[in-house]
Amino acid sequence: VFAIDQNLLPFSFEIRRLAEWRETADAIRTMVVRGAPAIGVAGGYGMAQAFRESAEPAAVERALHELGAARPTARNLAAVVDRVHAAGRAGGPAGAQREAQRIADASVEECRAIGEHGTALIRDGARVLTHCNAGWLATVDRGTATAPLYAARDRGIGFHVLVDKTGPRDQGARLTAWELGQEGIRHDLIEESAAGLLMSRGEVDLVIVGADRIAANGDVANKVGTYLVALAAREHGVPFYVAAPRDTFDPSCASGREIPIEERSEEEVLFKTGPDEDGRVRRIRVAAPGAHARNPAFDVTPARLIAGIITSAGIEVPGDARS
Amino acid sequence: VFAIDQNLLPFSFEIRRLAEWRETADAIRTMVVRGAPAIGVAGGYGMAQAFRESAEPAAVERALHELGAARPTARNLAAVVDRVHAAGRAGGPAGAQREAQRIADASVEECRAIGEHGTALIRDGARVLTHCNAGWLATVDRGTATAPLYAARDRGIGFHVLVDKTGPRDQGARLTAWELGQEGIRHDLIEESAAGLLMSRGEVDLVIVGADRIAANGDVANKVGTYLVALAAREHGVPFYVAAPRDTFDPSCASGREIPIEERSEEEVLFKTGPDEDGRVRRIRVAAPGAHARNPAFDVTPARLIAGIITSAGIEVPGDARS
Repeated sequence: VFAIDQNLLPFSFEIRRLAEWRETADAIRTMVVRGAPAIGVAGGYGMAQAFRESAEPAAVERALHELGAARPTARNLAAVVDRVHAAGRAGGPAGAQREAQRIADASVEECRAIGEHGTALIRDGARVLTHCNAGWLATVDRGTATAPLYAARDRGIGFHVLVDKTGPRDQGARLTAWELGQEGIRHDLIEESAAGLLMSRGEVDLVIVGADRIAANGDVANKVGTYLVALAAREHGVPFYVAAPRDTFDPSCASGREIPIEERSEEEVLFKTGPDEDGRVRRIRVAAPGAHARNPAFDVTPARLIAGIITSAGIEVPGDARS
Repeated sequence: VFAIDQNLLPFSFEIRRLAEWRETADAIRTMVVRGAPAIGVAGGYGMAQAFRESAEPAAVERALHELGAARPTARNLAAVVDRVHAAGRAGGPAGAQREAQRIADASVEECRAIGEHGTALIRDGARVLTHCNAGWLATVDRGTATAPLYAARDRGIGFHVLVDKTGPRDQGARLTAWELGQEGIRHDLIEESAAGLLMSRGEVDLVIVGADRIAANGDVANKVGTYLVALAAREHGVPFYVAAPRDTFDPSCASGREIPIEERSEEEVLFKTGPDEDGRVRRIRVAAPGAHARNPAFDVTPARLIAGIITSAGIEVPGDARS
């Protein structure tokens, strides 16, 4: 398994070789691979690796458990790992490998279809706000929240993207801005805290974000801060859309309250990493010495704040928002 | 005029000597001095310096103009500079100096009174969220939003503070966390984007923030992101309070729409500064190379989201929120 190390992007582009399932699990845990769809596909390949490495049921079970739990919030990870596990039990290492590949191919096709449906939302001159990174770095290709942007661009529609920086890991500033730059799409970074002001001034026409898990009632877990953007969007009549692959939907969660929210290390809040003016990557402290931090990585946006969920089958109005 | 250089805090504590009014104006512009009340007091001393430096009306007028316009959003700066200017015209350098000193002393007393009134809001065990820094670093002493906390602490009330990190300059992480640490008050940093999640879980009892300018209808301009916190607070029934000195009120602004919002350099969004592990202060890039940013520094919270404004005279319900 080969993965772009997203902890180094955009300052250094390195492909990591993940030779064993344990390395793949570590890459998911440490966010070398990140973004729910990419995590799922990586988990699937990890499971296929486990079948290749050992025929011992106990060893395979252990990989099933560890890969499925490498990140807690994304819905699809455990689902994909389960599917590849079942394929491996039935068809051995070759069966697991085929299933992992099928899932990766299906993910590419699904993102393309999300783009086709979502592009209808983007009018010429639109100002689109997005949060975190649900772009091609978070998927196998095209992204989820960005797929409609790339499809619109391909059709010659002109638009401008406001990219929430998205602390503490700044995936908007580091990954989305880099992606959009690579694709030649006009954009400006903003602090995510500025979304309310810009909406109150009428400077945002549309919000599109990704999703890590969607409950049965349509509540959406996504990167922390998404909920505040959704509250501001409702206040100012800005349509708020979520783009998501099918396996993000979790019918076993009745509502967002049941979605587990990952708490990550306080170090992510207290320190920043990036290149100094000589290009040397440094880690600096950005908080007062002795300060402690809490770091919930996701939040839940209730269905009633969501205008629609863009899927490969079309734009759906989530359960609770229909009533 | 002596000022703690707040651009270096909390990693280095240096007192800057501001020998001439132009240095004082620069210190306000570059945020060596920051926080609306502290800016006002510094502006007043700057104006007194101008009278001491030159008896030329044109030179004094120039200082009046430049000091008053050194930061655009804080209401009190121009008001204080005007008062000291009037005192200097009537009483010369000594009169200006006395007026500047009087304003500084009154500011200390006003913060104390804000604390006395605000402390009634803080019950034992309360979890209080604050945004940015409206502490003693932003004033002459005690702070505005923090004054009720210090008063509650002095009365033996136990509480916990959630400190919004407050990008792009992270005044919460750098200044408020440092202040509260110095005062022995329990606190945790959070990304400001996490305020919605924590409120939705019932983990916040009260919000207290400062203000840079308050319009006649009670709309409040404060550090960008305040508005999103206020929207989430309303959604979850968390009382949202603003602590403000009298000269923050601007009757000449009918509503928040007329308050000028300062746009600061994109560099603040694209870079971070702090000590590396050897304690050397470094400036690193945190955004994709080539990315551009917009950086509005304040936003406006409408009066209807505000439970009360804590002033030295008591807690007032803002104009538009009364109807």
